[in-house]
Amino acid sequence: MIQVIAKSKIKEGCLEEYKKVAFELIDETRKEEGVISYQLYQDIQNELIMTIIEVWKDEKALLEHSNTPHYKKLVPKFNQLREFVEVNAYRCVK
Amino acid sequence: MIQVIAKSKIKEGCLEEYKKVAFELIDETRKEEGVISYQLYQDIQNELIMTIIEVWKDEKALLEHSNTPHYKKLVPKFNQLREFVEVNAYRCVK
Repeated sequence: MIQVIAKSKIKEGCLEEYKKVAFELIDETRKEEGVISYQLYQDIQNELIMTIIEVWKDEKALLEHSNTPHYKKLVPKFNQLREFVEVNAYRCVK
Repeated sequence: MIQVIAKSKIKEGCLEEYKKVAFELIDETRKEEGVISYQLYQDIQNELIMTIIEVWKDEKALLEHSNTPHYKKLVPKFNQLREFVEVNAYRCVK
């Protein structure tokens, strides 16, 4: 199992547009065969920090995700709406 | 429910010691009344990035965690073994 944390800092004034794009990406991604969970979180102290926490069956499923039409269509839109994104893929140790 | 992501970059040569301290903190934390899950992850591309992903019943449980004897004993040890830590507390949006 692979856990991905994708932490974004949204540009001022772009939060609602970001959520719209994120909701579409979430709906489409949750239909994928290899996804276990795919959820959007908001920092409780800074509403502009939005993080998607993803759980995938394996690295192959994660790779396939990045080749889907919805990923290719929506992630570029994300990049116009955020200052930065930090993405880490993890394995559970304990 | 509150989800916390605590991402650490471990100093060179300190990984095994960090894991030892982390395992003790995990064992003790999992006994707490307000914890839902508390797991240690390692970045699949950089072994020195270690992240604890925590799920708490509410903010009160998270606050109580930081006042426990094991937190007060072990987290200062963490700080000697890592270059930085980034902690975000989140609520689920979707």
